[in-house]
Amino acid sequence: MKKLKTTTRAKKSKPASARETQNSRKELGRIVLEAKAASRILAQASTDVKNRALNGIADALGRRSEEILFKNGIDVEAGRRSGLPHALLDRLTLTHRRIQDMARGLRDVAALPDPVGRVVEESSRPNGLVLQKVSVPLGLIAMVYESRPNVTVDSAGLCLKSGNAVILRGGKEALNTNSALVTIVKDALKAAGLPPEAVQLVPSTDRALIRDLVTMDEVVDLVIPRGGEDMVRAIREMATVPVLSHGKGLCSVYVDKDADLGMAENIAFNAKVQRPGVCNAMETLLVHKDVAAAFVPKIVARYREAKVEVRGDEEVRRLVPGVRPASNKDWDTEFLGLTAAVKIVGSVEEAVAHINRHGSHHSDAVVTGDPAAAEKFLREVDSAAVFHNASTRLHDGGVFGLGAEMGISTQKLHARGAMGLKELTTTKYVVRGAGQIRE
Amino acid sequence: MKKLKTTTRAKKSKPASARETQNSRKELGRIVLEAKAASRILAQASTDVKNRALNGIADALGRRSEEILFKNGIDVEAGRRSGLPHALLDRLTLTHRRIQDMARGLRDVAALPDPVGRVVEESSRPNGLVLQKVSVPLGLIAMVYESRPNVTVDSAGLCLKSGNAVILRGGKEALNTNSALVTIVKDALKAAGLPPEAVQLVPSTDRALIRDLVTMDEVVDLVIPRGGEDMVRAIREMATVPVLSHGKGLCSVYVDKDADLGMAENIAFNAKVQRPGVCNAMETLLVHKDVAAAFVPKIVARYREAKVEVRGDEEVRRLVPGVRPASNKDWDTEFLGLTAAVKIVGSVEEAVAHINRHGSHHSDAVVTGDPAAAEKFLREVDSAAVFHNASTRLHDGGVFGLGAEMGISTQKLHARGAMGLKELTTTKYVVRGAGQIRE
Repeated sequence: MKKLKTTTRAKKSKPASARETQNSRKELGRIVLEAKAASRILAQASTDVKNRALNGIADALGRRSEEILFKNGIDVEAGRRSGLPHALLDRLTLTHRRIQDMARGLRDVAALPDPVGRVVEESSRPNGLVLQKVSVPLGLIAMVYESRPNVTVDSAGLCLKSGNAVILRGGKEALNTNSALVTIVKDALKAAGLPPEAVQLVPSTDRALIRDLVTMDEVVDLVIPRGGEDMVRAIREMATVPVLSHGKGLCSVYVDKDADLGMAENIAFNAKVQRPGVCNAMETLLVHKDVAAAFVPKIVARYREAKVEVRGDEEVRRLVPGVRPASNKDWDTEFLGLTAAVKIVGSVEEAVAHINRHGSHHSDAVVTGDPAAAEKFLREVDSAAVFHNASTRLHDGGVFGLGAEMGISTQKLHARGAMGLKELTTTKYVVRGAGQIRE
Repeated sequence: MKKLKTTTRAKKSKPASARETQNSRKELGRIVLEAKAASRILAQASTDVKNRALNGIADALGRRSEEILFKNGIDVEAGRRSGLPHALLDRLTLTHRRIQDMARGLRDVAALPDPVGRVVEESSRPNGLVLQKVSVPLGLIAMVYESRPNVTVDSAGLCLKSGNAVILRGGKEALNTNSALVTIVKDALKAAGLPPEAVQLVPSTDRALIRDLVTMDEVVDLVIPRGGEDMVRAIREMATVPVLSHGKGLCSVYVDKDADLGMAENIAFNAKVQRPGVCNAMETLLVHKDVAAAFVPKIVARYREAKVEVRGDEEVRRLVPGVRPASNKDWDTEFLGLTAAVKIVGSVEEAVAHINRHGSHHSDAVVTGDPAAAEKFLREVDSAAVFHNASTRLHDGGVFGLGAEMGISTQKLHARGAMGLKELTTTKYVVRGAGQIRE
């Protein structure tokens, strides 16, 4: 609660009047119930019909792109006037190219297998019951996100394919754009014979409505927050609806004594530098003492070329002059930028212990030619994804073959690691009998 | 929070002094960290070692049953003096037979397949990465339950088999019994070469410690509350650790116009009467209007013989004189006893709509000889388990072949319906490469 208030103030949003709030809350209650009713119809829709709707939205995005760009222009202009930071303005701004990308994303989702109706388990029981565990949609999903309008279309597409209705609550900066996009989605749903109420935009960006939405646990089956750490934490704290969220990524690479040092250099460099601001980038590099003298000076030199600030333990600083000392806090910090903490360890055991204690259980890699050391690391590091001789940056729905990605979960329940369409489903037991009763 | 206070007061537990509370909180913090460390060792334990420990506990229960019964006698005597209700006293009381049952349960768990280390998915990616999704233990589980001492042993056994450490917080009435049982479990763990810290009893039944336990989200991976609806709700509201819990069971049986009426009578009778106080017992009976005249008088007569109070809609009351009218509230009530609400519906669609609106999404059954009606019901009823021509009472881990049961989940995330050992695991991606990086 405190968090949310802070965020509200930081964004300087004008508070809604009590009357406005009351009206939008009523409206929200209404559309949530409509969406729940629509979810029951969507849950029964055939793969063909769902794909027709997805391709229909993609077509309409192309056909109606001027309309979208016009509305987007209003948002971008308002954002510029209110002094929205450049990075946010950039995320908010649509172009013909970006609209094409959204459309292609939808066609990709249409091409993926239907996650609904898979028989996950099957058995015949001694009493003659035939048991199936079948994948079914979750029902009604609430998405809370920030100013990127592509999330509107991506989420609608993923929810549609997985047979779920969705309530979208995007950033207030993108309200006109999102309204235009949702109108197009609804038209395409209708044209495909599906209920347009299955995709709904929260009618106001009044923040009071977020709390309402994430506490409607009788009707909403899941909340997915997509955004910064503060926003995600605020939602987790408020929600009574189950939450599926990304955690932070404090990832490590461990270079073992039996590593191919050329490979290790490539991986440690790629994991840190290729895109340092994302969750699967490396923050901590651990190096076995036996290869420290041969490896550390080389990788530090490459990091320095790439403007990475290195913070090292005493041993690292002995090997490479001018390295800044790592503080205790550095081992627990997700830098999300061009900083790396480097530490010398005495064994794979020590590396595993360091990662389990300081890491965020996201993605961690070992580089070694020793199969026993590799298996020990893969088995004992308690993270959503563990890599042998590969970069942590490869933890990604696309790379893993999941098609569209809903994000990377660091929680252990329901979904762990890269999430795809499957994570938007649950299961139900379907039991067929011939009059069996409990004795 | 409010809920918990109410419960505390209702149970008239003597509040602990501030100093006592402070000491037990410190102690709890210590044992939770010890258990987390032990969980890392347990996660790597082989199936053989885990099974040896399980059978070792079973042996020790037999060998040391006098010791257990002595401690249990102290609890039972104290319970009797403090006026514990008869039903609770009964659940608290151990006998040689009940100890044998616990031991047999452990041997059954030992005989089940190891849920850890299964390769759930496997693929090779175009860049040469070899990807596996492997089942792994959750880590550290907290069990909060009431006065049945068998839950202590069952939970320890299930957690051990699934490679998880566990913190047990049983009812204060059973503290001496639980201490004796946990001592035996710890001795058997040690004898099998496993860390005894993997199974811990919360050192005091001071209720302040429950809040501590269920908010330790940095260390505790899952909370499982087993008990009444109020207790479960209080835990859900307090917890920041993910919760896996049973919801209520408002289950229905729908007798279709094409039902075999003899079979329908058996199923509707069994679902209501065989054990009315449990979550998968039927509360509402829906009957198609075309068979109402033939079916309703017969089933009502059988219910009356079994002392079931029938509450009916107008049509039911027209068919059977003397039936009490069902109020609107009755359709939303889990009676958990010898009461049934009976309603006439016009179609399978109406039955499905009634169940989705008034039921608790637990277990619902259709009786019909019409495959189309059956499939419609099975597909559209949004419940954890749906039955065709079988009693809702069959929704059970044992009947479903899951061996030991952790309960029945009515939530949609992670586990839905009857839960077994598998639901005590999560997965991790294990990725093997040859130097791959992100381009």
